[in-house]
Amino acid sequence: MRSHGQAAWELLLPAAAAPARRRGRALQEALREAVRSGRLAAGTRLPSTRALAADLGVSRGLVTEAYEQLTAEGYLRSDRGAGTWVGDAARGRLGGTPARGAVRDPGGGTRTEEALAAVSQGPDPATRARGAVARNPDPDTRAARAPGAGAPAVRVDFRPGTPDLSLFPRAAWSAAQRAVLARLPHPALGYPDPRGLPELREALAGMLTRRRGVVADPERLVVCSGVAQASTLLGFVLRARGLDAIGIEDPGSPEHGRLFASTGLDTVWLPLDEEGLRPEPLAASGVRAVVVTPSHQFPSGISWSAERRAALLDWARAVDGHVLEDDYDGDFRYDRAPVGALQGLDPERVVYAGSVSKSLAPGLRLGWMLVPEALLAEVVERKRTMDLGNPVLDQAVLAEFVTRGAYDRQLRRCQRAYRERRDALLSALAEHLPGTCVSGIAAGLHVIARVPGRYGPPERFLARSAEAGVALRPLEEYGTARPGDGDVRLVIGYAHLTPPVLTDGIRRVAEAVRRG
Amino acid sequence: MRSHGQAAWELLLPAAAAPARRRGRALQEALREAVRSGRLAAGTRLPSTRALAADLGVSRGLVTEAYEQLTAEGYLRSDRGAGTWVGDAARGRLGGTPARGAVRDPGGGTRTEEALAAVSQGPDPATRARGAVARNPDPDTRAARAPGAGAPAVRVDFRPGTPDLSLFPRAAWSAAQRAVLARLPHPALGYPDPRGLPELREALAGMLTRRRGVVADPERLVVCSGVAQASTLLGFVLRARGLDAIGIEDPGSPEHGRLFASTGLDTVWLPLDEEGLRPEPLAASGVRAVVVTPSHQFPSGISWSAERRAALLDWARAVDGHVLEDDYDGDFRYDRAPVGALQGLDPERVVYAGSVSKSLAPGLRLGWMLVPEALLAEVVERKRTMDLGNPVLDQAVLAEFVTRGAYDRQLRRCQRAYRERRDALLSALAEHLPGTCVSGIAAGLHVIARVPGRYGPPERFLARSAEAGVALRPLEEYGTARPGDGDVRLVIGYAHLTPPVLTDGIRRVAEAVRRG
Repeated sequence: MRSHGQAAWELLLPAAAAPARRRGRALQEALREAVRSGRLAAGTRLPSTRALAADLGVSRGLVTEAYEQLTAEGYLRSDRGAGTWVGDAARGRLGGTPARGAVRDPGGGTRTEEALAAVSQGPDPATRARGAVARNPDPDTRAARAPGAGAPAVRVDFRPGTPDLSLFPRAAWSAAQRAVLARLPHPALGYPDPRGLPELREALAGMLTRRRGVVADPERLVVCSGVAQASTLLGFVLRARGLDAIGIEDPGSPEHGRLFASTGLDTVWLPLDEEGLRPEPLAASGVRAVVVTPSHQFPSGISWSAERRAALLDWARAVDGHVLEDDYDGDFRYDRAPVGALQGLDPERVVYAGSVSKSLAPGLRLGWMLVPEALLAEVVERKRTMDLGNPVLDQAVLAEFVTRGAYDRQLRRCQRAYRERRDALLSALAEHLPGTCVSGIAAGLHVIARVPGRYGPPERFLARSAEAGVALRPLEEYGTARPGDGDVRLVIGYAHLTPPVLTDGIRRVAEAVRRG
Repeated sequence: MRSHGQAAWELLLPAAAAPARRRGRALQEALREAVRSGRLAAGTRLPSTRALAADLGVSRGLVTEAYEQLTAEGYLRSDRGAGTWVGDAARGRLGGTPARGAVRDPGGGTRTEEALAAVSQGPDPATRARGAVARNPDPDTRAARAPGAGAPAVRVDFRPGTPDLSLFPRAAWSAAQRAVLARLPHPALGYPDPRGLPELREALAGMLTRRRGVVADPERLVVCSGVAQASTLLGFVLRARGLDAIGIEDPGSPEHGRLFASTGLDTVWLPLDEEGLRPEPLAASGVRAVVVTPSHQFPSGISWSAERRAALLDWARAVDGHVLEDDYDGDFRYDRAPVGALQGLDPERVVYAGSVSKSLAPGLRLGWMLVPEALLAEVVERKRTMDLGNPVLDQAVLAEFVTRGAYDRQLRRCQRAYRERRDALLSALAEHLPGTCVSGIAAGLHVIARVPGRYGPPERFLARSAEAGVALRPLEEYGTARPGDGDVRLVIGYAHLTPPVLTDGIRRVAEAVRRG
């Protein structure tokens, strides 16, 4: 491992010279890249924020922000009072012996989200209690939304999983379609490259590097039809390599289990606590692959701590395993910059998957994977035999859309709308169901609401809500935990509902559960 | 089995009353439906063409044409002199004991295509002789078209598999895209129905019933991303049911083998002769599923005889097996009406698969399957886990395109262009390589050319052509037959080349092989 003197900070100077409005981001990117490339080795102590700000001629606030952000992402470790150090999580790019545990961060870094009480209790199958609302086998897909025969009509549907489809930018998409049909050369209409259209892979790699802090080489990017297909593709590849099981977060998305089952892999629930996957059950499980949602865990809403991110990668290296990072809503973060993706810390262990399902529309069936070199050929061949590749025109339209800046505009537009809706939901809960504790609010399209037991036992609460035409999904449908404390834990999707509808839905619930 | 008097013919009267330009087709459809529904039972003798024409008040030519067409498709059997009878091939819809062999048709019915000499010799692995042109592992995909390092530049590429991409109707497609984005309700942009958009399934079912003579219930139609995905979907379903192998035609498409291998199924070559799959090797193979191209066999170009169609379905029923009908170019038939699809004879045994890859563009990745009831749920669930369903906008655009009549217009336009190109190819071969025997010319996007050995041994012929910048694919790359008679057998794709280019390509070959 190389040693680094003060001169190493010079590599941050170009970022410091960026225009003011981009300077903060440029600084973070330069610092992240320096850690990732090994130019700043694990264990290196960083200058104080005051000293580095002076060296670079930038405000101290920018440096503090950069340190906090990269600490949250696991690139840096901070020990309040003792300073900030380059972490060892990103060492997958460096080789050599890790400087493990040099600096520990007992407080979980700058993570600010509320811990989810239900999750910390862990799974307890003995206390399983089925709710009064029928379990739906497909919580994440549209097919699930049809009410059962004889059920009351759903007036307000709080079940998570869908963005606001009315925000789909029809005019801009149509313009991109026209532009593509006007310019695409004839041969591009032939059988596609199973990896995806080169211009889309370039555009996505740039966008993801900028927005999600991933290592995005277009040669490692595979266009697919969404995170569901990414899961199936990886599942088949791992099964062919001899794996017979994959770990999933508990609580997590049962849909992951069904997708992997279709590839011949069993799924193993792995308990979360308020920081992320608990290391001991993971190590004891015997699995060599897991699927996780570290940026905004589904459904609990926590953001994994930097320590747990590092621990997961340590585990993956130790067992020669792989991590599928399902970045299903990483684009939406309301109160601070998004947490960079786990993949940036170790692109050889992490398969990163995302899609336009939350940012544009699930019906587009367009997503992407960043695949470790060792798995790339197998994933691409599996993609080829599955469908020969994604439709070319759709890919060209998305490339056009991203390149024109329309994708960023769409994300900003959704972000504004969804933050307003989240605030409306929080206000409605505070007004109509006071005492409700809400967590996972910093990001995404849903929150966890823990409604105190005084509003009635969970079965009655859910039944009354359903009778009032409000569809709610209890947290227990997403995992094995059954706290049995009498509180109602709900996964409330809000992004697809306008503020008046959100408020009306919560008011209906409050009235229904108060009736004798 | 019910008996039918003269009154049964009354069901043809509405067809006879159709407007003149649609009367012939209406008559054929009504007759086909009458056989399929059992209203005309197997073994029923049909009136003479003269008598039926008089009864219905239509020209005798129309009736003759209808009898010939349905005989070619296997619905009827004709014994010259003895008359025409309802065949037993369609009895899957009838139940009861088949009246097998009541009438035999030793002449292969009205099939008019030239038999393929190479095929009738059957496979002979002992005489395998590899051609000088490198084998490409992906003959059916665009990826195969990049020339190898150091190879001469390809000026004229006769390799089959691609339509003329410049015929893609950009303006009409763009108009359909705009119309769809203007009218599609917001919820349609959500997670799709894995079976496909209802409006597309309706539109395709109507189009396929009309054009291909299939039994197309929209509830049995599954939209998929092409015949490749249809193969993979079916392969996974059959593998899960315990099958370990599937039969493919020899010669046939090696791509089928790779697709099924990805699902865990081995493939077994089954020899063709000039009428279709030879029944004895099929029965001896032990497989319980086959994939076939009976309308225009790939690559030999033959159309299966009515007898062989019936024999295949007999076999499928006897072994409780399934047939995948790959109708890859059934839309293009130049000298007579298209032969109806095999699926129409027994929709419970035949999985029918087609796509827009030859009629519009492979890059659209849009196709369809008609699935037997017994397999439907498994195919749909497999489609769901593979990608959750096809992109919604693409599906809506194709539905719009079909409903507007633009799809039929596109087929007519391609048909005119491709017939002209076929004729140009035949003229060029006759002029520049006289003595060449061409078969499989009645339909599709390619022909088989058997070039006499006097133009040089196959290795030299192919090497000289490649040096002259002409890419040719020998028939032997598609199967195990090695006739060893010194002739050169080529699979020549012509649809993507204009008449001047086709002529230039053949002229280049002729000059190259004549040089000392």
